[in-house]
Amino acid sequence: MITGRLLGIGVGPGDPELLTLKALRCLQAAPVVAYVAARGQPSVARQIAAPHLQPGQREVNIALPMHPSPELADAAYDEGASRIGAELERGRDVAVLCEGDPLLYGSFNQLLRRLAPSYPAEIVPGITSVTAAAAAARRPLAVRNDTLAIVPATLPMEALRARLAHSNATAVLKLGRHLDKVRQVLGELDLIDRAIYVERVSTAEQRVMPLVDMRDASAPYFSLVLIPPEREP
Amino acid sequence: MITGRLLGIGVGPGDPELLTLKALRCLQAAPVVAYVAARGQPSVARQIAAPHLQPGQREVNIALPMHPSPELADAAYDEGASRIGAELERGRDVAVLCEGDPLLYGSFNQLLRRLAPSYPAEIVPGITSVTAAAAAARRPLAVRNDTLAIVPATLPMEALRARLAHSNATAVLKLGRHLDKVRQVLGELDLIDRAIYVERVSTAEQRVMPLVDMRDASAPYFSLVLIPPEREP
Repeated sequence: MITGRLLGIGVGPGDPELLTLKALRCLQAAPVVAYVAARGQPSVARQIAAPHLQPGQREVNIALPMHPSPELADAAYDEGASRIGAELERGRDVAVLCEGDPLLYGSFNQLLRRLAPSYPAEIVPGITSVTAAAAAARRPLAVRNDTLAIVPATLPMEALRARLAHSNATAVLKLGRHLDKVRQVLGELDLIDRAIYVERVSTAEQRVMPLVDMRDASAPYFSLVLIPPEREP
Repeated sequence: MITGRLLGIGVGPGDPELLTLKALRCLQAAPVVAYVAARGQPSVARQIAAPHLQPGQREVNIALPMHPSPELADAAYDEGASRIGAELERGRDVAVLCEGDPLLYGSFNQLLRRLAPSYPAEIVPGITSVTAAAAAARRPLAVRNDTLAIVPATLPMEALRARLAHSNATAVLKLGRHLDKVRQVLGELDLIDRAIYVERVSTAEQRVMPLVDMRDASAPYFSLVLIPPEREP
């Protein structure tokens, strides 16, 4: 019996038109689609892909507890991987829908680790919020010898400062309640006047503004701060 | 008279199926397509987009001298921007085809800088070789608190070493004749056994292998070394 394939499908940052042609083909051909969502919340990846889903596709919703401990998260991924594995055993391809790119901070990494040893896997890369934010801001990400660092705001302040000091251009992701820490570090490094705040990029609720004009104390998870390279190309 | 719009269209790393639906729509609707190529060479971005081009689209080929001095490169971009500007003045949208993403090391940055002050610009982000390489290697790019650095191999050795030391995960781009320098730095930092070499990702000529198994002294421009995060997710 030939098993199905595990497909990690990047659905991009929000606009359903930012799926690739390959992502569209693969997700529409898959008899089963799966996604991870916070318990009781709709899956963002499913919302993005919704205009492209086909009638009759089976859906596997992997619900994560809100703010889970590592043990609870592991248990939820174990259970989700087991449900996906059961579909694969029946010979059905399973397309896991992933916001942005499957391998850049995606929970797909958790499923891949559990399932790749036993099943064939294929990954379709997705548009990241980083490139989409630069496009929305119409600013370079990197030119010539620039280094671009992609940094999570969840890092401790010292680590955040070191990362920002060692790159010409930076995208700080996962802002949430860490926004004030990011502001403080950028202020100390004299980078705050270059920083651009981008929220819910490529969606109808997109906001793009200089960070100094953004007054909220926290930010949604789907937001980032971009520090483009200083010199002109 | 309303001018045309400057459109920066990311066509992705090589596979024509890795264009987004939006990139496809925008490039097919544009009366003019433009691209940058080394003089006497075909444009890689045009080759990627070729299956999607429409009969009757005007084409603007911006030819760069091989290994140009900064002055000669500037002159070529000035001349290219001027030819695009002439189309925009006639009210025609111009879709600039860009390998990967337009703003990540793209020559589109040069055209945007010259034309954005005078014309409306819109950018459609593209799949980068970095996410496509991780997908081909089926390895995480970043998990949880990881920092991902995107670093050009053209940096001096000391700078390269500092960048690699300050991130958990790295993609080293623009290898070419800098491959041996990259090998040496990765060896010194004890990272070489984790490094994966990816060449011409997503094309029929794709190669993916541990860097230690890649024996060539140099690599094509369209290749990279990926150092995935060490620990399992």
